[in-house]
Amino acid sequence: MTKGETVLRAEPGTQEVLITREFNAPRELVFKAFTDPKLYVQWLLGPKEQGLVMRLDRFVPKAGGEWRFIYTDSEGNEKFGFHGSYHEVLSPERIIDTFEIEGLPESQVSLETRVFEEPQPGRTRLTMQFVFQTVAGREGWLQSGAEEGLIDDFERLDELLKRAVTV
Amino acid sequence: MTKGETVLRAEPGTQEVLITREFNAPRELVFKAFTDPKLYVQWLLGPKEQGLVMRLDRFVPKAGGEWRFIYTDSEGNEKFGFHGSYHEVLSPERIIDTFEIEGLPESQVSLETRVFEEPQPGRTRLTMQFVFQTVAGREGWLQSGAEEGLIDDFERLDELLKRAVTV
Repeated sequence: MTKGETVLRAEPGTQEVLITREFNAPRELVFKAFTDPKLYVQWLLGPKEQGLVMRLDRFVPKAGGEWRFIYTDSEGNEKFGFHGSYHEVLSPERIIDTFEIEGLPESQVSLETRVFEEPQPGRTRLTMQFVFQTVAGREGWLQSGAEEGLIDDFERLDELLKRAVTV
Repeated sequence: MTKGETVLRAEPGTQEVLITREFNAPRELVFKAFTDPKLYVQWLLGPKEQGLVMRLDRFVPKAGGEWRFIYTDSEGNEKFGFHGSYHEVLSPERIIDTFEIEGLPESQVSLETRVFEEPQPGRTRLTMQFVFQTVAGREGWLQSGAEEGLIDDFERLDELLKRAVTV
């Protein structure tokens, strides 16, 4: 089982970021890890060294639903908040929603599209596209350490999927 | 009272469209025309020559709410459908939502940001930004006649605001 690699592309001057990652699991299961609250809180935790805990303040993963995630440190102090609205949740193919980091001096919203494909049975290719309101907003995201957080997220998701597939 | 002019900018190769328009009305009232269902159906009707009628199938203009608009011709035949989710509705300043034209061979979602400013009392500057998932999606929108529809929409809105302001 080869370890998945997170590939990020951000062409200069554009408003978008493209991320691809493959997982050794059926796409129904990978999709479920994005829509089942009990699974989501186990892996969407950001950079490992921060040791954050995630709480789903609001989570309605369906078209027209909304979400809000709060991150706290090990002492329970609130560190980050994120929220958005779901435009489409089409199982097991696609999730489209909006995304905003709370508490920034200037608000910056992005449109997130996640596509789940199965290039071969039992293997899933996830493609995520973020389109930002501005190029500067895209740069801010890139510089925030979000990529490192995603890489750690996907390693945790890999482990979670491995346990789920072998159980 | 000078007539408003709709200005559209779409830089080549980008994923966005920027539209500005001024109205001789307080921004609270212009904002209301985007969030009050009784007002919205009176002006968001697209190109005049099509003589469309609009029906709000779903309309919850608040963060986490959704919307769906159906257009019918004068005989009641359904012509177009559009839907999306609200990310933010901050009265009277800003509305951020998603937008999708229904029934396209390939789905294309955009993130819409509408900013309402009052450069002087009783006058409102509306700035609308659409960010598309792809450059091709942006081109499709530009070629669909959406700009002409918007110009007619804003003329109707001008008339509606004039009646509301003078009553």
